[in-house]
Amino acid sequence: MRFSDDDIAFMAEAIALAAKGRFTTDPNPNVGALVVKNQQVLGRGYHHQAGQGHAEVYALAEAGAAAKGATCYVTLEPCAHYGRTPPCAEALVKAGVSRVVIAMLDPNPLVAGKGVAILQAAGIDVQSGLLAAEARALNPGFLSRMERKRPYVWLKMAASLDGRTALANGVSQWLTGIGARQDVQLFRAQSSAILSTASTLLTDSARLTVRQVSACSITPLTDNQIRQPLRVILDRQQRLTGSEPLFAEGGPVLLCYAAEQTPKHLAQAKVPVEQLAMTTTAFGHLCLTSVLAALHERQVNSVWTEAGSTLAGQLIAHGLVDELVLYQAPRFLGELAQPLAKLGDFQDLQQGPQWLIQDVVMLGSDIRIRALPVFPSLATSDASTEEAH
Amino acid sequence: MRFSDDDIAFMAEAIALAAKGRFTTDPNPNVGALVVKNQQVLGRGYHHQAGQGHAEVYALAEAGAAAKGATCYVTLEPCAHYGRTPPCAEALVKAGVSRVVIAMLDPNPLVAGKGVAILQAAGIDVQSGLLAAEARALNPGFLSRMERKRPYVWLKMAASLDGRTALANGVSQWLTGIGARQDVQLFRAQSSAILSTASTLLTDSARLTVRQVSACSITPLTDNQIRQPLRVILDRQQRLTGSEPLFAEGGPVLLCYAAEQTPKHLAQAKVPVEQLAMTTTAFGHLCLTSVLAALHERQVNSVWTEAGSTLAGQLIAHGLVDELVLYQAPRFLGELAQPLAKLGDFQDLQQGPQWLIQDVVMLGSDIRIRALPVFPSLATSDASTEEAH
Repeated sequence: MRFSDDDIAFMAEAIALAAKGRFTTDPNPNVGALVVKNQQVLGRGYHHQAGQGHAEVYALAEAGAAAKGATCYVTLEPCAHYGRTPPCAEALVKAGVSRVVIAMLDPNPLVAGKGVAILQAAGIDVQSGLLAAEARALNPGFLSRMERKRPYVWLKMAASLDGRTALANGVSQWLTGIGARQDVQLFRAQSSAILSTASTLLTDSARLTVRQVSACSITPLTDNQIRQPLRVILDRQQRLTGSEPLFAEGGPVLLCYAAEQTPKHLAQAKVPVEQLAMTTTAFGHLCLTSVLAALHERQVNSVWTEAGSTLAGQLIAHGLVDELVLYQAPRFLGELAQPLAKLGDFQDLQQGPQWLIQDVVMLGSDIRIRALPVFPSLATSDASTEEAH
Repeated sequence: MRFSDDDIAFMAEAIALAAKGRFTTDPNPNVGALVVKNQQVLGRGYHHQAGQGHAEVYALAEAGAAAKGATCYVTLEPCAHYGRTPPCAEALVKAGVSRVVIAMLDPNPLVAGKGVAILQAAGIDVQSGLLAAEARALNPGFLSRMERKRPYVWLKMAASLDGRTALANGVSQWLTGIGARQDVQLFRAQSSAILSTASTLLTDSARLTVRQVSACSITPLTDNQIRQPLRVILDRQQRLTGSEPLFAEGGPVLLCYAAEQTPKHLAQAKVPVEQLAMTTTAFGHLCLTSVLAALHERQVNSVWTEAGSTLAGQLIAHGLVDELVLYQAPRFLGELAQPLAKLGDFQDLQQGPQWLIQDVVMLGSDIRIRALPVFPSLATSDASTEEAH
């Protein structure tokens, strides 16, 4: 057997350590490390925040001179490049560890096997691939950016059991309960960016900020540890004025508008706003692929989408959803209430998007369903969206 | 402490025994019994089928003379009346048991405490109320008939994650997978009657029979043990002709039609058919309360409803649903597809029906949600239905 039960247990602990950084490391990955000798853990570390030390640095510091001859368990290949910190692979060599067990190689082209090469050149025994799937699950956004050159896209939706997001008159507050709303806060807090539309903001007066995360997180955060994600708003016709609640607080805003418009002066905005002219499709809609490309250029790992049935339908139709997070409230709103996703007409069931359900949990009296798409892009046109009417 | 750990364990076994009869005892309740002395189980029994022996009779027969001085655990108060079998309370007295532990009293007016009285008069120590909630859950239909004078009504629905039952063109086969369809068979097999409409039958060519239960039941049944429930079809305008698949096989059929029509000769029907003129409401719809009253007169304990959005909406609106069983297929069908339940318009969320979710399970790649209504009747008009158009 390549890995012992001890190896598995220590790597599992390193993965749990890594997860502690999930609200704060963006745009860096979550990484955890353990330094172990004679089955004793000598040092533990995880990456807290971009610009601060890497997991291995903390674990080695805690172990001190005793790290000599020890094994280091690390959830991601140690870095090989001088970034904001010196390369961890060299730190491990310097500390004299004799073995390094790695959950997964780093797809970052600056590392990508170079970390392992440094360790092996120094005569260190290196093994990789232990609990790789679990280590991947720590960093869906970072891995998407590195491997696919686009952010990981969550589509959040909230509906009644009969699939309706709001009454015909637009009333939807509060469809889901406090448990679901807190869960949304945790997803927002883990995301690099939150994507929405001008229509949604004008309807809901949403701020799209991270709030009350300390209260509902397993790992309490102090208020100044809370990272406010970039808010990305599709505002094709430049309907926002800068006076909406979105502009009063929270992270920076990226406003995407149709290229034929001219940038607007948003005098009342109290947060940094970038206005970005986007290409439009033949239908005059903003090109969603271009929006995601612009986010990739800005090092956005992951996008949490909270919007209406139009954007939801367009993201689904163009195969741009990586994960559906659907909150179901235990209500029926009836046949006249508003639909979940605008997808147009299908002639048979197979034409509609299909999902693979990953887990179903109760949050208070609501249900949360997480599902992965099992459909290719449905549309033949360019990826595009229009704001809900 | 009133009941010992042993008492709880033996009653739990009696309840598990009772459940073995769940496909076959209708219209009788499910009952299980254990005869125990010195912590040894001397006899086990459960009610198999109406007309056959009661649970206590089997358990006492297995225990034989050793039953003298033993404790009998029984999930429902022993009967006190001469029905198809002699009273079990007298059999327990005759066998010389010294203690009887009862999960719940029998609400049947023929019993209702008289069984306990016979036992106590003979000097037997009687205790009741152990695992009463679990014992009640064995017999939702029987208890509804006895206590509320109407059947227990399940509303079965199947929809996509976006709450749609079929495409706009009517296509719905097969929305859910084999696991969900087998689960439906188990519910049908436990029900006294299956309720549907002429519209549904004409659209789906449904037979509404119990099939393949042996294959999917935990307790295998031989084919001749399978009980075919009464099929109750709302056919206000007498659109069915007797040549539909429904009339070719399965249990008897009760056709409900509007009183102003005259009974039709259904020459091609191969199963017994009763035609029943029902009162109609001011809207010309069949009165659902009257339908349930007619079923009560026919000793129907429980009704499994499989129909479209119109009947579903009417049952919900009139507070006639006791339990929702919703199968969700991991698909989206889009905003043009057919709605789950026709309920009309609401001005605020509180006006819509709300549910208390009891359990959520995966069946293959589908989800099954069981929920209880937490709403009073929504409608002010008489209970009524019309067939879907």
